[in-house]
Amino acid sequence: MPDHHSVGATQVKEKRQWTVRASEFAKCTFNPIRSIVDSMKLEPHPDKHMIALSIGDPTIFGNLKPHDAIIEAVQNALHKMKFNGYAPTVGYLEARSAVAEYYTTADTIVSPNDVILCSGCSHALDLCISALASRGQNVLMPRPGFSIYRTLGAGYGINSKFYNLKPEAGWEVDLVHLESLIDKNTVAIIVNNPSNPCGSVYNKQHLLDILQIAERHCLPIIADEIYDFFVFKGEEFHPLASLSQNVPILSCSGLTKRFLVPGWRMGWILIHDRNNVLNVEVRGALQSLSQRIIGSNTLVQGALPDILRNTPKSFFDETIATVQENAEIAFEKLQLCPGLHPVKPQGAMYMMIGIEMRRYPEFVTEFQFVERLVSEQSVFCLPGKCFDYPDYFRIVLTIPKEQLLIAMDRIMEFCCDHHIEEKNAGQHIVEVNGEQVHIDHTIPHSFCGGMAKT
Amino acid sequence: MPDHHSVGATQVKEKRQWTVRASEFAKCTFNPIRSIVDSMKLEPHPDKHMIALSIGDPTIFGNLKPHDAIIEAVQNALHKMKFNGYAPTVGYLEARSAVAEYYTTADTIVSPNDVILCSGCSHALDLCISALASRGQNVLMPRPGFSIYRTLGAGYGINSKFYNLKPEAGWEVDLVHLESLIDKNTVAIIVNNPSNPCGSVYNKQHLLDILQIAERHCLPIIADEIYDFFVFKGEEFHPLASLSQNVPILSCSGLTKRFLVPGWRMGWILIHDRNNVLNVEVRGALQSLSQRIIGSNTLVQGALPDILRNTPKSFFDETIATVQENAEIAFEKLQLCPGLHPVKPQGAMYMMIGIEMRRYPEFVTEFQFVERLVSEQSVFCLPGKCFDYPDYFRIVLTIPKEQLLIAMDRIMEFCCDHHIEEKNAGQHIVEVNGEQVHIDHTIPHSFCGGMAKT
Repeated sequence: MPDHHSVGATQVKEKRQWTVRASEFAKCTFNPIRSIVDSMKLEPHPDKHMIALSIGDPTIFGNLKPHDAIIEAVQNALHKMKFNGYAPTVGYLEARSAVAEYYTTADTIVSPNDVILCSGCSHALDLCISALASRGQNVLMPRPGFSIYRTLGAGYGINSKFYNLKPEAGWEVDLVHLESLIDKNTVAIIVNNPSNPCGSVYNKQHLLDILQIAERHCLPIIADEIYDFFVFKGEEFHPLASLSQNVPILSCSGLTKRFLVPGWRMGWILIHDRNNVLNVEVRGALQSLSQRIIGSNTLVQGALPDILRNTPKSFFDETIATVQENAEIAFEKLQLCPGLHPVKPQGAMYMMIGIEMRRYPEFVTEFQFVERLVSEQSVFCLPGKCFDYPDYFRIVLTIPKEQLLIAMDRIMEFCCDHHIEEKNAGQHIVEVNGEQVHIDHTIPHSFCGGMAKT
Repeated sequence: MPDHHSVGATQVKEKRQWTVRASEFAKCTFNPIRSIVDSMKLEPHPDKHMIALSIGDPTIFGNLKPHDAIIEAVQNALHKMKFNGYAPTVGYLEARSAVAEYYTTADTIVSPNDVILCSGCSHALDLCISALASRGQNVLMPRPGFSIYRTLGAGYGINSKFYNLKPEAGWEVDLVHLESLIDKNTVAIIVNNPSNPCGSVYNKQHLLDILQIAERHCLPIIADEIYDFFVFKGEEFHPLASLSQNVPILSCSGLTKRFLVPGWRMGWILIHDRNNVLNVEVRGALQSLSQRIIGSNTLVQGALPDILRNTPKSFFDETIATVQENAEIAFEKLQLCPGLHPVKPQGAMYMMIGIEMRRYPEFVTEFQFVERLVSEQSVFCLPGKCFDYPDYFRIVLTIPKEQLLIAMDRIMEFCCDHHIEEKNAGQHIVEVNGEQVHIDHTIPHSFCGGMAKT
């Protein structure tokens, strides 16, 4: 019986021919965003400069820069000449201590041994997923969600099962659906809060509800908290691990987004395991796996204590204020576009916008909508397909305000050019996994060039 | 029929119990050096300071430091504020161009598209192995050799097959043995030159002989050339790719060793593929795999053009001179130790030393020999077991000369204390894979405390 896991091995190779195949692992490592974007016709309008609302890199527009304290910390580490050699693969003790201190609160004690430094948060997620799940097992993950979870798991033959988020409830988890997906092969739940692509921030009760399901089924949680504390004024971020005594939680974060240095590749895993459930095997597994690429850059590790201690709160507040202002502008503007239904974010750097596709009969999918938005208006948004969520698109909110305003005007123009009248305007039905989700909007979507059309 | 690749999946998990298992991938990712060292009793002699000849980190002793040009290049990159965002996962074009330029010669043209920047050379090796080999297939690798090849492959279920190196021939590859290992599941050959742990540097003819075997069987080569150009005066380094028109070669190197910044995690793959054999699948595979952890640190990438252009030749010459002097000292000293048989290196940073175990009847294995050397003399060398090569130990040659001299004296004292007389002194028989390898040494090993004992 052929083993379908080793196709390459069972094909008898012609040794006299230069046929060099890629591995199954590589073939299964598939980044949908990359291939979706590559498959798009992205020819901007020649008379309009391109505005990319697609890229989740807060540094790309030049308006958001890391604080001087962050740069100085690396400069000092560089000149100390103490951080050029190999660090332990889980990171220098001093750097891990600084991370532990940063996350320790009265309720949640993090020890340096609970910290594994990684080469960015993707690497942290890779270690967590590959430490917990084997071929044929499955991990639950949000839809819409960040595609890397599936990309990372697929290489190992780990199955992804997607639980629904509810746009009509600020992208909260559909708890009934989540629980219904759990089977004997489920080994972990990924929870992303604050969320990419949704910008949602869960309240305490909702997180407790999720934890209760995990506890009921004895499933550890991988908490993707790369946007931790990145929440708008008036919102509160609750680290998932602060809310549970019993559920083992691997919390992933890093400098990437909030410190505005994604390219530096400094991420970490916090192992929350009050009852020593993960001590039996998983801690050791994470350590073994960290030896594969021998950890993260030592200069940034050397700078980490100063970065975490010296970056002022005002720096974060300013970044968040910028993003929040943009969120409010974009939300207001997009609400006025016929057939568009922005879902208000509470944190992170993104907003998802639903499209009433029946009001855009020229386009079969949101993919075509987004493609045409590029060719006519030179505004590029990521189609929902990238997050396994059709009929939506995602915009980033880190762009300079002036650019955002131009982009919003262009989207308005585009919508006015292409929408058709709709008697049921304000009633939004989207199909999610074959189910019709009904969203009631009270604001009429009738603002086109200042002239009411409905 | 149970699939043995998914043990975790077929065990029905008790959902009401907190039993969180590690994945098969993690369990198969096993660093033998780590576990061998962890299993050793390493209690140094209380009256003698510890001298660690075990760690392959050239920066650890403080005598070898990166050149100012290297530090300045990072400093400049840091202050340009252009290298904080995400780079392409294969690296910035400018950084890849610099690497391509660095390796381009009249005979070998490397284009920026042939370069993939990685998070250190381990990551480069991981990408190459995991791009080429699937579960159940096998990769040929040297014995003695760097254990990470096996560690990286094992997680994916890739089998390691070890070809012998011949200590009596300066650690050249046993070509007959190499070729005998190739079967229909063999997908690549790893060649490590200059070698860790051997310090050997292959001549042109020997590399051509290896290439001929690869060509005969249409097997691509993964060339671990992390010690490229790191060869002693009078020796010559031939990049493997410079010697073949037909064999596709993935050449792995980086800043790690020669630029004395292993912790910075800057490695690269050079894709040499004159006949576009790897274009079909493998190039794409390497790119897909590079997306898993989103590449290497951008500050170092930003600095790379300056590092490669501005680091003066004198810097490398000085490092090599230091290592070569140490190699000569250690070789001479160890040759005089009864029952020890150092094999002279020609490059890299290591030397392997054979032990005539029958002259040390107190110790069953070299492991015990090395352990006792720590407890009596506070000198720590890595046992051959770490390289799958019993009856040998490895020393590093980057240590300050004064420390090396002390260490050599202590080893001499240790040998004098423990060896027994041997009529066949000078005849060295080691067992490699069940075969007896006979080495003829002409220098009598009879120098103990200045007093001839034989």
